[in-house]
Amino acid sequence: MTNVAVAPNEKPTSGAGLRGQSAGTTALCTVGQTGTGLTYRGYDITDLANHAQFEEVAYLLLKGQLPNRQALADYTEILVGKRGLPDALKAVLERIPANAHPMDVMRTGCSMLGNLDQETDFSEQTDKTDTLLAMLPAIICYWYRYSHDGVRVDTYQPEVKSIGGYFLKMLTDETPSPLHESVMHCSLVLYAEHEFNASTFTARVCASTLSDLHSCITAAIGSLRGPLHGGANEAAMAMLEQWRTPDEAEAGLMQMLANKDKVMGFGHAIYRESDPRNALIKHWSKQLAENAPDAWLYDVSERVEQVMKREKGLFPNADFYHASAYHFMGIPTKLFTPIFVMSRVTGWAAHVFEQRANNRIIRPSADYDGPEHQDWLPIDQRP
Amino acid sequence: MTNVAVAPNEKPTSGAGLRGQSAGTTALCTVGQTGTGLTYRGYDITDLANHAQFEEVAYLLLKGQLPNRQALADYTEILVGKRGLPDALKAVLERIPANAHPMDVMRTGCSMLGNLDQETDFSEQTDKTDTLLAMLPAIICYWYRYSHDGVRVDTYQPEVKSIGGYFLKMLTDETPSPLHESVMHCSLVLYAEHEFNASTFTARVCASTLSDLHSCITAAIGSLRGPLHGGANEAAMAMLEQWRTPDEAEAGLMQMLANKDKVMGFGHAIYRESDPRNALIKHWSKQLAENAPDAWLYDVSERVEQVMKREKGLFPNADFYHASAYHFMGIPTKLFTPIFVMSRVTGWAAHVFEQRANNRIIRPSADYDGPEHQDWLPIDQRP
Repeated sequence: MTNVAVAPNEKPTSGAGLRGQSAGTTALCTVGQTGTGLTYRGYDITDLANHAQFEEVAYLLLKGQLPNRQALADYTEILVGKRGLPDALKAVLERIPANAHPMDVMRTGCSMLGNLDQETDFSEQTDKTDTLLAMLPAIICYWYRYSHDGVRVDTYQPEVKSIGGYFLKMLTDETPSPLHESVMHCSLVLYAEHEFNASTFTARVCASTLSDLHSCITAAIGSLRGPLHGGANEAAMAMLEQWRTPDEAEAGLMQMLANKDKVMGFGHAIYRESDPRNALIKHWSKQLAENAPDAWLYDVSERVEQVMKREKGLFPNADFYHASAYHFMGIPTKLFTPIFVMSRVTGWAAHVFEQRANNRIIRPSADYDGPEHQDWLPIDQRP
Repeated sequence: MTNVAVAPNEKPTSGAGLRGQSAGTTALCTVGQTGTGLTYRGYDITDLANHAQFEEVAYLLLKGQLPNRQALADYTEILVGKRGLPDALKAVLERIPANAHPMDVMRTGCSMLGNLDQETDFSEQTDKTDTLLAMLPAIICYWYRYSHDGVRVDTYQPEVKSIGGYFLKMLTDETPSPLHESVMHCSLVLYAEHEFNASTFTARVCASTLSDLHSCITAAIGSLRGPLHGGANEAAMAMLEQWRTPDEAEAGLMQMLANKDKVMGFGHAIYRESDPRNALIKHWSKQLAENAPDAWLYDVSERVEQVMKREKGLFPNADFYHASAYHFMGIPTKLFTPIFVMSRVTGWAAHVFEQRANNRIIRPSADYDGPEHQDWLPIDQRP
C-alpha cells in the first residue's frame, strides 16, 4: 500500500517542500534569476527602492503598472481615507492581552475585519485590499498602544500621507522626520513581494478554493509568523543588542559559531551571491546611526557582516540591517514582523488576484507510509 | 526570461494545481486507493462510521491508535472539561454581526483563541488541539445564538458528553436524542480526515514555517470556506429545499441540467465509482426522515440521486445526504460548513503534527510569464 520511493530509513528531502517544483505561473516577480536579482513586474528592486514611494510600488503590484503623479496622488488619498478602524475591531483589539504574539494580533485583526467588511464578490478585491493596506498599520498600533501604554490611539490620521509615516506617527505620537519616512518607504518596498515564498503560497492555496480575500491574507499572516519565514530581523536584533562594541561582537559571534548556534539574517534559500535588498537598507541604517544614541549598533552590525563573510562566506540578507534601521527609528523589536505584513499584503493580494484569474484548486497528492489495512477491533477487545 | 512551457494562448492545466504531484508523506489516510476506499490509519471508513464514536476517531487520528474503553472515557472527560469559552473570546464573538459568514466567525474565533491560549512550544500541540476540539462547537453556537436569538448560551455544558450532542444542545437548548447523537457521531467521523485536500494542505504549508497550531488551523478554516472546497452540503440543501415532491424535483433537476447549472453534492475529484461516505450518511438521513415533518426531503433527495445517475452517470458524494440529515435535526443550513470544521480540525491537527515531525519548508517554484526588464521611468515622465 505504501508508495514512498525511498528506503525505509531514508528521509526524502530532495523533493521535499516542493523545492524546484513549479506550482503555477506569475507575472509579479522574479527572484535570483541571475543569482542576485529581484524584480517586481520587470522593474529592478534597486530602482524601486531608490526612487519609488511604497504606495507607488503597491500600485504597481496591485494594478499592473507604475502610476503617474496624479494617479499616485489619487491612490494615496483613497488609502488615507480608509484609515480609522471600525469600533467593533477596536473592541476586539482591546480584548487581546499585552503578552500576545503581535503576529497573532495581526492575524486576528485581519480575520475580524473580514466579518465587518466582507468581500462578497471578487469585483471588490481591489477595494478590500486597499482597506487592508490602510488598516493593518492601525491594527497593530491600536493594540500595541492600548495594551502597553493604556492609550486609545487615534487611527484616523490623515496628516501623514505615507503608510510608513502613519505607522510611526501612531506608534510615537510624533510627526515622523523626512528621513524616517524615506527609510520606511525603502523598507516597505523591499518587503512587498517575493514570488512563491511560503506565506504567498499559503495565500494562493487558500485562494484556489475561491475563498475570500480576508481568508487568504489571514492564512498568509499565519505562515509568515513561523520562525523559518518572517521574524529573522527580530532574531537578528536580539543577537545584536547583546554587544556594545565591534570587538565584543566579534568575540561573541565567534563563540556562537563555535557552538554552532544559528545566526539569523544571513544567507538565503534562493540568492547565491548576495541579497539585492541588503545594500539598500544598509545605506539607511548607516544614515540613521549618525544621530542615534546607540549608534554602536551599526558598527556592531558591520563587524558581524565582516566576520560572517570571513568565517562562513555568507552574506547578509534583507533582514539583517533592517534590525538596526528599525531600532534607530524607535520601533520596538516585537513589531518588526508586523511591518513585514503591512508591506507584503500587497504581494499576497496581487498573487490572490492572479490565482483567481486562472484558477485550478491546489490539491497535491501524498505518499502513504502508514499501516496497511487494519481489522476493526471492538472497544472492549482493545489492549 | 519567461520559461512557461506552453504556447502563449494555451493555459497550462494538466500540471496546474499540483495535481498528481506528491507534496509529502502521510500515515493518516488513503483516499480512493481501490477507486472507492477511504481509510484512517488503515481502518476502513465504514468500520469507523458504523462502530466508533467521533471522540474515538479523534483519538485515533491525534494519538495514533484506537483507545480502549478507559482511555476513551478519560479523553472524553478531558474534552468536556475544556468546554466553556474565555470571556474575552465571548466578547469578540458578540462584536461579530448576525450577517457575517459563519466560516469567518470560526476563523476569527480560532485566531482569537490563539491570543488567549497561545501555543508557545510544540510540546503543547496535543493540549491546544484538544482545547480547539472542545471549543469550536461553542464558538459557532455562542455567536449564532447571541447574534440571532439574543441569547448568551452557556458554553460549559458537561452533561452531554459527545461533541456532536454538545453542539445540538447549545443550538436548540434541548438534550439531543440518542438517534441525533448517533447521526452526529457518524457525520463527524466521515468529515474528520481526507489526506492532502486544499485546507489540509494549507495547514501543512503554514506548519512548514514552524508556525503555531492556531495559525495553521485558522488558515485551514479560511481554505475550507471556499466554494470549491467546503460548503457543498449547504449548496445541496439550497437546491433540495426548492422541491416538495420527487416529480417536482425531477422536473426541476432536468431543467437545471438543460441549463448546464452546476449540481452540488455529486462526483468527486478522486473517487471514480462512488464515495464510500455516501451510503453511511444516507442510512441516517432515511432514518431521520421517518419522524420528520418535512420527510419529503429524503424522497426528493433519492429522486435527485436516481436522475443524476441516469442522466450524468454521477454518484452522490459525502455532502449530498448530509444536507437532509442535518436539516432533519433542525440545524440551520448556514451552520453546515462550521460542523465540517468541528470535525476536520482533528485531521488538520494530525497533519500539522506530521509536518512538524519531518519538516522542510514548503516553498515551490513558479513559472514567470511577466514582462522582461523594464527601465525605470521617473514619475513625471509616465503617461
